[in-house]
Amino acid sequence: MTRIAICAPSTPFAEEDAARVLALAAEFPGLELHFHPQCFAAHGHFAGPDALRIEALVECANDPAFDAVWFARGGYGAVRVTEAALARFDRAAQDKLFLGYSDAGTLLGGLYRARIGHPVHAPMPGDIRRAGGEDAVRRTLGYLAGERGGLEPSLDEHPAVAFNLMTLAMLCGTPLMPGLAGHVVMVEEVSEYLYAVDRLFFHLTAHLGGIAGLRLGRVSDVPENDRPFGASAEDIARHWCARHAIPFLGAADIGHDVANRIVPFGLAGRGAGQ
Amino acid sequence: MTRIAICAPSTPFAEEDAARVLALAAEFPGLELHFHPQCFAAHGHFAGPDALRIEALVECANDPAFDAVWFARGGYGAVRVTEAALARFDRAAQDKLFLGYSDAGTLLGGLYRARIGHPVHAPMPGDIRRAGGEDAVRRTLGYLAGERGGLEPSLDEHPAVAFNLMTLAMLCGTPLMPGLAGHVVMVEEVSEYLYAVDRLFFHLTAHLGGIAGLRLGRVSDVPENDRPFGASAEDIARHWCARHAIPFLGAADIGHDVANRIVPFGLAGRGAGQ
Repeated sequence: MTRIAICAPSTPFAEEDAARVLALAAEFPGLELHFHPQCFAAHGHFAGPDALRIEALVECANDPAFDAVWFARGGYGAVRVTEAALARFDRAAQDKLFLGYSDAGTLLGGLYRARIGHPVHAPMPGDIRRAGGEDAVRRTLGYLAGERGGLEPSLDEHPAVAFNLMTLAMLCGTPLMPGLAGHVVMVEEVSEYLYAVDRLFFHLTAHLGGIAGLRLGRVSDVPENDRPFGASAEDIARHWCARHAIPFLGAADIGHDVANRIVPFGLAGRGAGQ
Repeated sequence: MTRIAICAPSTPFAEEDAARVLALAAEFPGLELHFHPQCFAAHGHFAGPDALRIEALVECANDPAFDAVWFARGGYGAVRVTEAALARFDRAAQDKLFLGYSDAGTLLGGLYRARIGHPVHAPMPGDIRRAGGEDAVRRTLGYLAGERGGLEPSLDEHPAVAFNLMTLAMLCGTPLMPGLAGHVVMVEEVSEYLYAVDRLFFHLTAHLGGIAGLRLGRVSDVPENDRPFGASAEDIARHWCARHAIPFLGAADIGHDVANRIVPFGLAGRGAGQ
């Protein structure tokens, strides 16, 4: 039996959505999901005050009964708790999978830097709210059950990471930024103007010296600006990669959508502990 | 006679707005304004292609006939041209004032790092479009004419800088980020969700070790989110300053509005070359 603890380091989850995820998980008899009650707490923008989110995260990570910690959803808030929580992770956290994306990338990045556990970019329980979101949630459940069909197809002999562009850009130069030399770095973005995407690429690529290359996931739900930007998201990625002599490797099959694929940090498959 | 060159490293200016600024400038007989034709160029989001914006900026900076370079407006684009332009600035740029704010802060930051000229956070020609914007534009014209009434009132014996929060956050760790040890750092923001302000403070304060303190300008036009953030902009600033042992010094009289005051980078008054 693979036991999975779910907590919400960013924004609150809904009990009815948790029930739908538990129903899906029943399709996987080898998996047992436990939603930590903190998932349903609310405090302004966040799923409870910082201290409560830290406690829940530490409990899930340090409880030897669990094999994996799955972040319920993104939405902003992980930067307020990651450093304090990671400082309290103990030996029981070391062999666990940690799964999520979007704002949860902050945790994946911090864990990867600290070499704690196996961070995995993967759909979250929160994806159940999307149209067709069951497939996204099933992809992560399948991965936890040992399936490998949900892996991002470009994964190769290079170590890889996958992040939301804004999330990774905000980690640069902070105590949560992992060293990514030699890695394929995949980024995706949602709901940002193309000028903001360009600005984020300026910032991020200045911090990515020595990576093996960059892949661009989907840049979706771009708001309409008062005038066209004049270049596509791929043009933007190519421009800034060229500026910093970073190989642009093409597309990555990740994004804020139901097709979002799985990227175990490091070498593909290693994250599964198999 | 003080001669001022105006160019647009970010987004395009309008000829009719330039005419209104020239009319205001006629109130100051010691000033002569020259709008570079590049101000009115357009190429997608930008006031002409990168190469054209670089050329105009270098021309204005290196022409010994000018005493100051005033950036027409912000709006994003300076990060695409600043490094290349600054690399071509020559001796004639060294004693000039460079004035602007918002996205133009990228240029001010890069100039301050390179110790070229006298960067000044100040209202721009583009402020003429605001209701009551004449007063903002007059504030910079007055400063250029030797008046000191428009200076930010908290300026003291510490060197100071002033930036848009997003703009400065994007400079962190890049070749355009100036060393700010010992400085009072003032930041303001506009049109960002409070969760985004919180995220930017996480990032920025991780890069501001050793500053004398932080002052918060106005955080205006905050969009309505689906739920209240639960903390004010000042709460956010205090939280992240405390996290990094940065003294929080209170308010700064700067912002994306007509009351935006003048902050010469470094020691107040030094920027005027007097």
